[in-house]
Amino acid sequence: MQKTLKTVLGSIVAPRGFRAAGVFCDIKRLGTGKGSEKGRKRDLAIIVSDVPAVAAGMFTTNQVKAAPVQLCIRRIAKGRAQAIVANSGNANASTGALGLKNAEEMASEAARLLHLPEQLVLVASTGRIGVQLPMPNVRRGIRKAVSSLGGSPEHAAEAAEAIMTSDTLAKTVSVEFAIGGRQVRIGGICKGAGMIQPGMSPTGQRPAAIVPHATMLAFLTTDVAIEAPALRAALCRAVAASFNRITVDGDMSTNDTVLVLANGLASNNPIRAADYRPSRNKTAGAPPVHEPISAPARVFQAALDHVCLTLAHMIVRDGEGATRFVTVRVEGARSVIEADAAARAVANSALVKTSWYGGDPNWGRILDAVGYSSARIAEEKIDIGYSAPGSRRIVWCFKKGQPTKIKFDLLRAAVAPRQFDLHIRLNVGRCSAVIYAADLTEAYVDFNKGDLSNPSALGG
Amino acid sequence: MQKTLKTVLGSIVAPRGFRAAGVFCDIKRLGTGKGSEKGRKRDLAIIVSDVPAVAAGMFTTNQVKAAPVQLCIRRIAKGRAQAIVANSGNANASTGALGLKNAEEMASEAARLLHLPEQLVLVASTGRIGVQLPMPNVRRGIRKAVSSLGGSPEHAAEAAEAIMTSDTLAKTVSVEFAIGGRQVRIGGICKGAGMIQPGMSPTGQRPAAIVPHATMLAFLTTDVAIEAPALRAALCRAVAASFNRITVDGDMSTNDTVLVLANGLASNNPIRAADYRPSRNKTAGAPPVHEPISAPARVFQAALDHVCLTLAHMIVRDGEGATRFVTVRVEGARSVIEADAAARAVANSALVKTSWYGGDPNWGRILDAVGYSSARIAEEKIDIGYSAPGSRRIVWCFKKGQPTKIKFDLLRAAVAPRQFDLHIRLNVGRCSAVIYAADLTEAYVDFNKGDLSNPSALGG
Repeated sequence: MQKTLKTVLGSIVAPRGFRAAGVFCDIKRLGTGKGSEKGRKRDLAIIVSDVPAVAAGMFTTNQVKAAPVQLCIRRIAKGRAQAIVANSGNANASTGALGLKNAEEMASEAARLLHLPEQLVLVASTGRIGVQLPMPNVRRGIRKAVSSLGGSPEHAAEAAEAIMTSDTLAKTVSVEFAIGGRQVRIGGICKGAGMIQPGMSPTGQRPAAIVPHATMLAFLTTDVAIEAPALRAALCRAVAASFNRITVDGDMSTNDTVLVLANGLASNNPIRAADYRPSRNKTAGAPPVHEPISAPARVFQAALDHVCLTLAHMIVRDGEGATRFVTVRVEGARSVIEADAAARAVANSALVKTSWYGGDPNWGRILDAVGYSSARIAEEKIDIGYSAPGSRRIVWCFKKGQPTKIKFDLLRAAVAPRQFDLHIRLNVGRCSAVIYAADLTEAYVDFNKGDLSNPSALGG
Repeated sequence: MQKTLKTVLGSIVAPRGFRAAGVFCDIKRLGTGKGSEKGRKRDLAIIVSDVPAVAAGMFTTNQVKAAPVQLCIRRIAKGRAQAIVANSGNANASTGALGLKNAEEMASEAARLLHLPEQLVLVASTGRIGVQLPMPNVRRGIRKAVSSLGGSPEHAAEAAEAIMTSDTLAKTVSVEFAIGGRQVRIGGICKGAGMIQPGMSPTGQRPAAIVPHATMLAFLTTDVAIEAPALRAALCRAVAASFNRITVDGDMSTNDTVLVLANGLASNNPIRAADYRPSRNKTAGAPPVHEPISAPARVFQAALDHVCLTLAHMIVRDGEGATRFVTVRVEGARSVIEADAAARAVANSALVKTSWYGGDPNWGRILDAVGYSSARIAEEKIDIGYSAPGSRRIVWCFKKGQPTKIKFDLLRAAVAPRQFDLHIRLNVGRCSAVIYAADLTEAYVDFNKGDLSNPSALGG
C-alpha cells in the first residue's frame, strides 16, 4: 500500500455524505417464515449520497447483458448519479422487456422514496439468470432500506452483506489520503465467488483485443471533487489493472458492474479532465487508457487503484471452493495482448488449476497451456519459476526450455502456501501481463453441480 | 453407421498385411518387481505392415511439440511409412536435443530389428512431460514387441492397451466395405482421457482461424490402395469432423497425433489424388478441406469418417472422471468459425460442465457462455433445447431469448441420461458446428490434483 494511504473504517460510508443500508426482503427465498429473520440472508442494498455526485461505471462485455446493466450504461453516460440500488438472489438477466421495466421500477421506486430524480439512480442485480424479479419483495426491500439508511460502519457492512451470493465473506475496503491539503476518502464494497472472469468496458462494448470472460459487483464511493471525464478515465484505468485481471473459473457474467460515485464533499481543488491524457503505451485493439499527469490526479489514481485491487484480490481469495491464490506473471511477450493470452490460458487451464489445488509444481501443464495460447513463443527460450507473493527470489523449475536441476522438495515447498506467484518468462519481447487466479477444487464442482431441489435454479 | 459398412474383429490387424504387439517394459514404472508382470501395465506398442505403405498424419498445433511429433511431421511429408512405435508413460516432450535423439533411436532400433529403412518408421509418445525416455527400457520393449508381433485380435488388443494412460478402457474399431468389388478394411486404436481438446493439422502449423486446444493418439491401418495426396486429404477431412471436434477439459496436448498407414493389399483400383478436389465450402482461415468426388473415394471417406468419429467418441466417453457425453450443436451462426467459437465456449465452460454433471438443465450458464464467446449473437433470437442423441425431437427451454413454459421435470429428464444433445440456435446466419464434450466432475479434479508421492510427476 502507498505510504500516503491510510486505512480507515466504514467502507462505502467512510467518505463524507454517504449513507447505506442492507436489508432482508426474501429475494433469495431463504426465509424461514414471516416475522423471523433467522436463516434469511440480506438481499437488497441502497447506497446514497447526500448531494448529486459525478459517476462512472464499467460493465460486462458479455453480449448478453442483464437489464440493470443496460439501464446503467444508458444513465451513466451523463456522468451524474446519486444513489445505487442493488439486489442479490436474482440477476434480472435474460428477462426481456419486463426485466428492463422492473429494473427501471427498482430505480424509480428508490428515487420516489429518496426524493431524487429517477435518472440519478443506478441499479445492479446478481443471482439467478432468467427469472423475473419478485417485484413485491423488491418494493418492500427498497422501502425498508430507505427507512434504515445510515452512515455507520454497520450500515455499510449490511450493504456489503446484501450483495453477497456464494461469497463466504463480505468484502469491504476504505482508505484516506490527502489532495492539496484536503483529506479525501474512497470506500468500496464488492461481491464475487463464481462465474468470475470479468472483462468490462465503460460502454459494455467489447474492444477487439480483449479476451472476454462471474458476476462481480463493486460499488465505490468517494468525496473527492473530480470532473466526470477524469473519473471515467480513472475508473477505466483502475479496473483494467484489477477486476479485469482476475479469474476464478473463466466464465464472464452477464451482470459484471463497477460503479463509482464522487460527491465532491472533500472540497479539494477539483481534478479536471485535463489532469488525464491518453496513455502513450497504447495496446492495439485495447480501449483507450488515460494516465494521470498532475500530482492530485496521480494521488487519486493510486488510491483508486489500491481500492480496486484490494477488492479484486478478495474476490479471488473467496472464489467458489478456492484454496489457492496464484498470481500468474507473464513477461517477455511480443505484445501485451499475447502476454495476456498466455497468462489467461495458464490461469484458466483445468489441468493447471487442479495441480495448484494438489500442491503439485507441475510445469509441464503450464508449458502446454502457454503453447496452445495465441502468444507466439520459442520453447527453448521459456523460463518458469515460483516465488512468494511479490518476491523476486524465484525458484526456477524450467530455464531456456529445459527443466532445472532443482530438488523436487524445494519446488513442492514453493507451491505449498495458500498464495504464491508463478513467473513465466517468454523471452521473445518486452511486454508483460498479470492475472490473479484461483485453483479448481472438488468443492467448486460440488457447489456448481446445481441444486435440483430448487426448480428456479435454472439460471446462473 | 453406413449400411455399406460392416463391423469386423481385429482393429488394426483387421486389414490385410498388418501385425501388432503391445508389451511391458516398465516405462510407466509401475512394476512390482522383476520377473513378475503383476500390477504392471503394457507401455510399448508396435504396428507394422508387411509391405511399405502410403502414410498420412495429423499433429498437434500446440507450439510446444513433443520430439516424436517433430520427427513424424518431417517423415510423413514423403507420404510413406511401414511401422509405428509408440510408448505410454512418458511424452518425450520438452526434452530438447536429447529427446529428439531418443525419438530417432526409438525409430532406428525398431527399423534395425524389423529390417526396414529407418525413414519408414514413425514414433509417438504419451505420458509425463519433461522427463527423458528411459532408453534401456525402450530398447528392451522394442525387442520384446518385435519378437511378439502377430496378426490376431489379441495382438491388436495388447497394442491398444499399451498406449493407454489414464484411459479406463482400450479403444478399438474396425470396419469392412467394398470398393469396386474388392473387400477393403480400416482398423484403428486410440487413447485419450485427459488434456483433451485436440486441434491438429497436417504439418502442426496452426491455421489462423482454428481455436487451438490432451494427449490423444490414434493409429489407423487400412489395406486400401490409395495415393498419398488422396490419403492426406481423406485423413484431414475425417479428423476435422472427429478428433478436432472433441473436448474433455479444453487443454490441448503437446503430443496429439493421428497416423494412418494404407498398404494397398486390398488391390482395389487405387484412389487417386484426382478423386479429391478442394471443397467449395471454404472457411476463412481454416485449412483447405478436400472433398471426395468419385464413388470409390466417397465410400472410403465415409468409412474413414466413421472410424475416426467412433474412436473420437470413445475418448470423450472415457474422459477423466466423465459421467456425461454431450453433443453441443450450434446452428444459425454468421460463420463456421463463430459457430465453433460458441460451441467451444459452452463445451469448455466450467459452470456449464458442472451443471451437466449435476443433471441440471441450466440454460442461464449456456446463454452466458454463448454471450462471452466471439460469436456474434442477438439475445432475442436465441433458442436453446435438449434432445436424445441424434434426435430432432427437441425439448426447448429457451426460445427467442426467453425461457419457455416447459415443466422443470421434463427438462430435468432431458439432461438425466448419460448422453444427450444440446441444441443452440443463434438464428443470425446459416453456419453450424458440433462439439462432443464431457462434463466436469469431482473425480476429474481428484485425479488431476497430482500424485506428490511421485517426483517424476512434474509433467503432463
